[in-house]
Amino acid sequence: MARARPASGEDSLIARYFRPIATDPGAFRLDDDAAALRADGCDIVVTTDAIVEGVHFLPDDPPDTVARKALRVNLSDLAAKGATPAGFVLTLALRGADESWLQPFAAALGEDAAQFGCPLLGGDTVSTPGPLMISVTAFGRVPAGKMVHRSGARPGERVMVTGTIGDAALGLAVLKGGKMHAATDIAGRDTLVGRYRVPQPRVALAEAVREHASAAMDVSDGLAGDLAKLCGVSDVSATIDLASIPLSDAARDLVSRGLVALETLIAGGDDYELLCTMSEDRIEAFTRGALAAGVAVRSIGTIVAGNQLPKFIDRQGREVALERLSYSHF
Amino acid sequence: MARARPASGEDSLIARYFRPIATDPGAFRLDDDAAALRADGCDIVVTTDAIVEGVHFLPDDPPDTVARKALRVNLSDLAAKGATPAGFVLTLALRGADESWLQPFAAALGEDAAQFGCPLLGGDTVSTPGPLMISVTAFGRVPAGKMVHRSGARPGERVMVTGTIGDAALGLAVLKGGKMHAATDIAGRDTLVGRYRVPQPRVALAEAVREHASAAMDVSDGLAGDLAKLCGVSDVSATIDLASIPLSDAARDLVSRGLVALETLIAGGDDYELLCTMSEDRIEAFTRGALAAGVAVRSIGTIVAGNQLPKFIDRQGREVALERLSYSHF
Repeated sequence: MARARPASGEDSLIARYFRPIATDPGAFRLDDDAAALRADGCDIVVTTDAIVEGVHFLPDDPPDTVARKALRVNLSDLAAKGATPAGFVLTLALRGADESWLQPFAAALGEDAAQFGCPLLGGDTVSTPGPLMISVTAFGRVPAGKMVHRSGARPGERVMVTGTIGDAALGLAVLKGGKMHAATDIAGRDTLVGRYRVPQPRVALAEAVREHASAAMDVSDGLAGDLAKLCGVSDVSATIDLASIPLSDAARDLVSRGLVALETLIAGGDDYELLCTMSEDRIEAFTRGALAAGVAVRSIGTIVAGNQLPKFIDRQGREVALERLSYSHF
Repeated sequence: MARARPASGEDSLIARYFRPIATDPGAFRLDDDAAALRADGCDIVVTTDAIVEGVHFLPDDPPDTVARKALRVNLSDLAAKGATPAGFVLTLALRGADESWLQPFAAALGEDAAQFGCPLLGGDTVSTPGPLMISVTAFGRVPAGKMVHRSGARPGERVMVTGTIGDAALGLAVLKGGKMHAATDIAGRDTLVGRYRVPQPRVALAEAVREHASAAMDVSDGLAGDLAKLCGVSDVSATIDLASIPLSDAARDLVSRGLVALETLIAGGDDYELLCTMSEDRIEAFTRGALAAGVAVRSIGTIVAGNQLPKFIDRQGREVALERLSYSHF
């Protein structure tokens, strides 16, 4: 016999779409007010990032890519802190219960949760007349006291970056149509748009970051601005060799044809690569660890003493002034 | 010399308003991508609740009460789970950086964080063209394995509730004007509106709940509906004595004058009281612990076997049918 239960739209949404992906025993099938996260002698690293329709994703982005982006931007932060994913909670602000949107959203979220070992632990679903918003708070574990900070960079250390920079900003430009859309072929567009919609969080590098980096953060608001933040908190500056900033083939092609400036790419957001600093003697082991995880890493410059903004130097040895360092919400 | 730093509106908002209240060492002055939460051998209890302008609070509610409500609805969940507050993260979706709103909001948030021992650990601030939304994820500590669940209620146990029920729903009705506003005097209005705007989370009862309750949850969507949820997860039912449901003087007055039905009050939301179950022999110690914390508790009924919805019985011994059990977002 079916149990008589209060008919609540919210409860039934949760039961249908989110309970199946809340597989961790500490999630208690989402039947409770809270989850229990075992610490296992570790510190719990906590990070939170929200994405808003029209700001961080486009109204016609597919629901599965929106789900992946919402979780992955947080996984990227955990990786930058050297933390192994432990779980996440989700706040969904929806205009209504559009099940044709929720079904693929939840399915993709569940796939990513499984892929990255970061189970759904709980959440809240609220109605809003405004744009869709997805707020994720994610948890990771590090050995006690071992979270990697932004503040540990020291003069003489090298500045390392993973993957390639600027693709997501180009992907957004492609989606907006116009010049960038016209300038790219189908394969290039797919690559760039994919990088905008579905970040590749460097979860597999968490341990290497924890072992080797003196400071780290993820690149989410633009490499130039994020490096300036890391330097600010570490009370140092940096000199960056523009030519060594890693670009994808698609981005390099657009730069070489004069369709976009490298300066624009390093101020663009949504890269979700890792930026970290380490002493010269750590680079080989770090690079080896990264390659084993299938991720390319590149040394792009040096930490120097001082409190000025990082300098970006071109092939001719000239400093290039940046008009804009990063994306800001206000 | 002032450090050259990227000019970011978001960073400067955080520095001005939120850094001063992020006093926990694990918050790293909000200078990092993440916080580190020490577990100290405990499980970390995680709960998340969002409030939306026009849904959970009114557009002209004062910013300080909005801040307190956003945090306190989460503290209420922690208390219901028997957890001691450990900290929280905050996602703010704002239409713009209105500093005359942010200043009192952050100040009140800091006061509550200090009062309840629940420091700000981090957050995210995003812009939205839609209504203001505040999402809080709060953390508490319980001895490993000791979180109190919704699922532990057993036939024969008593149903206990803290404080008084229905005041917040009446406070909302008062704020909306009309009959309830006209029917209350200034003191009554202040009491009821205060209960709507600023919940009193029963943080001081966390230990007593952990020691004595077999199941617990907080009453946020209406006593009737929340009890039905607790019974559902525990696979039991309940018989509730309507006359023993604790009411404030203001609410009792309105009920006795026929201006509101008791059934409406027990389906109203925003009480943020605790609902818990325990065996008869625990009641005295639980009540003593609660009174020592300054909180009245009341036995309102009994858990019974079965899978029907809880029954509400009036003074004449008749079952009262409820049209609506609770508030639902969809």
